[in-house]
Amino acid sequence: MSGLLVGAILRSPHPHARIRSIDISAAEQLPGVHAVVHAGNVEQRPFGYNHDNLPLKGDKVRFIGDELAAVAAIDEETARQALELIRVDYELLPAVFDPFEALDESSPPIHDELPDLEGNVAMRWDFDHGDVAAAEAEAAVIVEGTYSSPQAAPAAIETHVVIAAFDPDGHLTVWSPVHMVFMYRKELADCLGLDWQQITIIQPPVGGSFGGKIDIDPHDFITVMLARKARRPVRLVLSREDEFIGTRTRQPIHFKLRTGADAEGKLLFRDAEIVSDNGAYNGWGSHAMLVAMNTITSMYRVPASRVRCAVTYTNKNYGGSVRGFGNPQATFAVEQQMEELADALGMDPMDVRLRNANQPADVTPQGMEITSCGLTECLQIVREQSGWDERRGKLRERHRGLGAAAYIHVGGGARIYGSDGCGAMVKVDDSGQITLISGSSELGQGSETALAMIVAEEMHVPLEAVHVINSNTDVKPWDVGVHASRTTFVAGNAARMAAADARDQLLETAAELLEAPVDRLRIVDGTVGVVDDPERRMDYARLVRRRLLREQGSVVMATAFYDPPTEMQKEYRGNISAAYGFGAHVAEVEVDPDTGMVRLLNLWTAHDVGRAINPMLCEGQIEGGAAMGIGLALSEELVIFDGRIAAPNLHDYGLPTALDVPRIVVNLVETIDPRGPFGAKGIGEGGIIPPAAAIANAIADATGIRPREYPMRPWKVKGWIDTQERSIVVRNDA
Amino acid sequence: MSGLLVGAILRSPHPHARIRSIDISAAEQLPGVHAVVHAGNVEQRPFGYNHDNLPLKGDKVRFIGDELAAVAAIDEETARQALELIRVDYELLPAVFDPFEALDESSPPIHDELPDLEGNVAMRWDFDHGDVAAAEAEAAVIVEGTYSSPQAAPAAIETHVVIAAFDPDGHLTVWSPVHMVFMYRKELADCLGLDWQQITIIQPPVGGSFGGKIDIDPHDFITVMLARKARRPVRLVLSREDEFIGTRTRQPIHFKLRTGADAEGKLLFRDAEIVSDNGAYNGWGSHAMLVAMNTITSMYRVPASRVRCAVTYTNKNYGGSVRGFGNPQATFAVEQQMEELADALGMDPMDVRLRNANQPADVTPQGMEITSCGLTECLQIVREQSGWDERRGKLRERHRGLGAAAYIHVGGGARIYGSDGCGAMVKVDDSGQITLISGSSELGQGSETALAMIVAEEMHVPLEAVHVINSNTDVKPWDVGVHASRTTFVAGNAARMAAADARDQLLETAAELLEAPVDRLRIVDGTVGVVDDPERRMDYARLVRRRLLREQGSVVMATAFYDPPTEMQKEYRGNISAAYGFGAHVAEVEVDPDTGMVRLLNLWTAHDVGRAINPMLCEGQIEGGAAMGIGLALSEELVIFDGRIAAPNLHDYGLPTALDVPRIVVNLVETIDPRGPFGAKGIGEGGIIPPAAAIANAIADATGIRPREYPMRPWKVKGWIDTQERSIVVRNDA
Repeated sequence: MSGLLVGAILRSPHPHARIRSIDISAAEQLPGVHAVVHAGNVEQRPFGYNHDNLPLKGDKVRFIGDELAAVAAIDEETARQALELIRVDYELLPAVFDPFEALDESSPPIHDELPDLEGNVAMRWDFDHGDVAAAEAEAAVIVEGTYSSPQAAPAAIETHVVIAAFDPDGHLTVWSPVHMVFMYRKELADCLGLDWQQITIIQPPVGGSFGGKIDIDPHDFITVMLARKARRPVRLVLSREDEFIGTRTRQPIHFKLRTGADAEGKLLFRDAEIVSDNGAYNGWGSHAMLVAMNTITSMYRVPASRVRCAVTYTNKNYGGSVRGFGNPQATFAVEQQMEELADALGMDPMDVRLRNANQPADVTPQGMEITSCGLTECLQIVREQSGWDERRGKLRERHRGLGAAAYIHVGGGARIYGSDGCGAMVKVDDSGQITLISGSSELGQGSETALAMIVAEEMHVPLEAVHVINSNTDVKPWDVGVHASRTTFVAGNAARMAAADARDQLLETAAELLEAPVDRLRIVDGTVGVVDDPERRMDYARLVRRRLLREQGSVVMATAFYDPPTEMQKEYRGNISAAYGFGAHVAEVEVDPDTGMVRLLNLWTAHDVGRAINPMLCEGQIEGGAAMGIGLALSEELVIFDGRIAAPNLHDYGLPTALDVPRIVVNLVETIDPRGPFGAKGIGEGGIIPPAAAIANAIADATGIRPREYPMRPWKVKGWIDTQERSIVVRNDA
Repeated sequence: MSGLLVGAILRSPHPHARIRSIDISAAEQLPGVHAVVHAGNVEQRPFGYNHDNLPLKGDKVRFIGDELAAVAAIDEETARQALELIRVDYELLPAVFDPFEALDESSPPIHDELPDLEGNVAMRWDFDHGDVAAAEAEAAVIVEGTYSSPQAAPAAIETHVVIAAFDPDGHLTVWSPVHMVFMYRKELADCLGLDWQQITIIQPPVGGSFGGKIDIDPHDFITVMLARKARRPVRLVLSREDEFIGTRTRQPIHFKLRTGADAEGKLLFRDAEIVSDNGAYNGWGSHAMLVAMNTITSMYRVPASRVRCAVTYTNKNYGGSVRGFGNPQATFAVEQQMEELADALGMDPMDVRLRNANQPADVTPQGMEITSCGLTECLQIVREQSGWDERRGKLRERHRGLGAAAYIHVGGGARIYGSDGCGAMVKVDDSGQITLISGSSELGQGSETALAMIVAEEMHVPLEAVHVINSNTDVKPWDVGVHASRTTFVAGNAARMAAADARDQLLETAAELLEAPVDRLRIVDGTVGVVDDPERRMDYARLVRRRLLREQGSVVMATAFYDPPTEMQKEYRGNISAAYGFGAHVAEVEVDPDTGMVRLLNLWTAHDVGRAINPMLCEGQIEGGAAMGIGLALSEELVIFDGRIAAPNLHDYGLPTALDVPRIVVNLVETIDPRGPFGAKGIGEGGIIPPAAAIANAIADATGIRPREYPMRPWKVKGWIDTQERSIVVRNDA
């Protein structure tokens, strides 16, 4: 791109400080510098869910990495030099790093500019269902515990890269690896005071996201600001260090959970206090708490529940919407308590799970309408494959153990915005080429393939005949974006509807040309024929040419928009998704009692995918998710001291390698969801949810101690062994 | 583009030769060469209208410039060196350069491989209407003459550039500045044996075409062959010399024409023998003869006509589909004879024209249904503005003269292929941004602006709200391509239909939200309001968001396909276009009798544009066309000796410069065509048609001599003056 400049960002070295002044004059005068932006010379408005963030901070910095200023220069070296010439005068402020300290009203206020805030509590969400007090009184067994998770990173191999370019007429094009291009466009315009209609967002091929690229980030706005000021296109590439420090993470969530059951193992209640440590600013990621709440109230049948959530601000880098979105954290708590409860009852944890398993046609306390549910079958499969009945509780001598965990997760979109819809257009040209223009975004998860297969199936053509286009807001119809494992379900339904319309148009032409009513036509492999008359047949390419190449002819074009039949929740009640996914894992571990080192020997998984549109892609999603879940369980952690990430690099971060991941056994359970395209449900996140819980339970089975937090690194496990950390059984009348 | 190679072509230095052998071995071994292709190592099938052409010639070469072999190498220097290493053994053959010689059966056969060919006659077209013999007998005045035109070039400032790249999965993407992307895709696949469905054609911004980039050329195929063989992307850029030698030109056409009229100046007949010199191969360009035929039979009301056309092969570079497509050539003959006839009758040529002018509701002898026609008004305007009545025939003392010419040309598409249709999609997003995805192609003529205006008008929104996308076969709906001045009319109607559908969808939502029936709603500047209730109003952006951001919501998407209500001609009869454009020019010249130098002093023009969607663009098309017409008239010519273009460069070719073009007065006559979008008709070619004829008539008025061919360069005009070349009046009983 001709005239492309390099962008670079000056970030705060302090976790909490007031900015007395910023002096950019020396930087501006450096030869090769085309623009220097800071809060004092740009137009910007607060963005983010709580409108608590600004691309460039002018009043305060709130974490180490907060954006202060940026430059666009002819090369990286010049840009770096220019950053060094910017002088910032800070007044250091006391900081708060612990979410429980942040709950205290006397903690240093991080967002004193937001008038309605109660100290550092960004949000509080309370949910009550049934009579918890009565259930608690009735319970034969009650277990209680605290369960915590660390700050983790999506750690996609490709870092964030943004290019922004203004046309001479003021039209802005942004290339950014986001997965919610239309929302991105809106937020860009709102924040920068740009005309929303004069912006095109192009999503180039994405080198991994896992949710890390869902939200619009300060560097996105900053790149546009630089291009605007420099009147030249600007590219901003985050270094790996910037990626760890300056982009969104999986927020630590702390659970205090009590679960009670009757003497037969029937669940009676859950009571949870949840504190999320969301860092300096709030985005969609804060809503990971909603998913955590769903798991507390709806994983297994829970007649009564009480949930108290608080999202706190701390002076740390901030939480985002990472794969699983609060569910690995919540499942770590809930599924440990399932086994703690079973152990207290002297029952097999699988039996307890099966007794309480969600079933089709259930409506959960939060109003989630379960259309299809293979939880029971998933549990039975992993129970059998792992040799659970013969081996669980019987391997401790060999320092081995088995542990299980299951999950519920949205599998048919998630209505968290006014629309959860997606548009699709299908056209068939004179070549017979079928093009799907989908609103959805491909992030490497294989959704283009799945969508092409759906169109091919609906139109009865070979897969190669279908081309999928989905990268540019100018071209594609609206879609809310990739989140909540929704693409196959929502974009798939839209694609299927448009494909059906296109097919019907072709059938109509075929009826005319083959002189047979539509109900006597059959399509096989892209050729329409008349039933019982093999002579009368015509392939799609010829059909569409015959339709086109005549007076008053036309090609085939069809559009569809699918918005799933779901509800915006009110007071945390409502059917948020059109379908729900389920699954179960069993992990087998070996624990070295002297070092606390945990070796994962086996992971058996079974997932209710509704219908496996592409079994290999489903397996890939589950294996990839499980590998990330194993990383969360055993090694991944952003170690933060006084707000500073100790080692922002891939090696120290603890991403699992091939040697850390055993063979993962994947079973696909097809429940054929009534609303899913050909019965499919989302499976993008399921795999990551159970491993930490299953591994924790396996460690408990192997050692008798009870993990309280992940990652369960050796020194932590050794500590639990040394202190004999155990399950807390509040009551056991069974 | 990473790994991009440079392509280069080896062309024949001989006008006609048999190829005994081609040896590429030395070229292949040159370091840096990735592929060498020739007829012996590629798959190719004949292409072109007569299937008489191959990308790489294996048997014979038929003109100087014919493609023999090509290389792909790491850089231009290496490619050039490799070409020099290719050894070709030729057996020279006698050649034919003159089309009249080519008509002789004893001329050396150029396409001896085509069995059904009658010598070097590629095609013969005969048309008869009415009783010419009776008309001739009845005529009071008959004039007769020969009128010729040279080989000319479209001479776009940008030369042809093609890039071809195969994906790892075999999908081919070609970037090429063509204007018929879907036809291009088909021909590419047919010739190279590629799967038509696995090809994407992307039209980048085009630096001028004027028809020169309509057809697929050998170099297009060759670039793909090179990319296929090299397994790397290849870019081929034609040099200016290659552009003149190796791409299509405006074919010379020779007319022998007789016209007769009664004593009152009413036309009685035309009798034409037309020979086109189409060069070595036949493309769509050979059909320029069809337009020439239209002009003979249908320019003014002509009760009887006889046309004999022959398209000849010669050993010269070949004819294409250049702006005006045979019409400047035919009008040069027809409109000179109108003034010759008037002069013989002693009548004013304008009066003769007006007496015979086509009128609305006329059906011409070839079946052209004239829906709207402003010819009379156009003639009256230029007559008045030029001071015709006072000045014509009265300036000879000052060596000055006035001459006029008018034209008829297709203005509502031209059905020369099974479909003359175009698709359109309109979508409205949550921003209120309106996107038109049009099948049409933008070549710099401003069609994107015109289409955006049509959508804006139909939807009642400001122009800035509409974005036009039209460059990629994967994205855009089918369209036959840019030819025959059809884009505003055909693509405009398609865009209008889709826009109307989108608007109606928005009105339906507005009716629901504003609680008023649709017939009480009015849209002003993108805001829908209830008549007589200024409080109840909502802009499109808000409407579409309200429509979208609700349960079961949707955005707005609409598709349309417009195929004009026209007929494929049978035996040259049928209504080929849905509308016809008309116009008239008057030129004023000064001729230096000593040198023959012609100076164009004034050009008054009036064009029936139906409706000027964008008056400035209409004026631009007319001025640009007229400037090209002035070039044809006075200076442009590919001078060819023994088949060799003497000086293939822009300077010697004789493109007119700013100093050669006087102020052009443009009048837009709006006849509001009943089928055009908002009444518009095509205007892309009109401007180029009359100037040569008008200037020839002005020279005749200034000097008394009669020009027989263009370009009317000084030495030719001087020759006519010296030999007293005059009109030939066969009979004058008036």
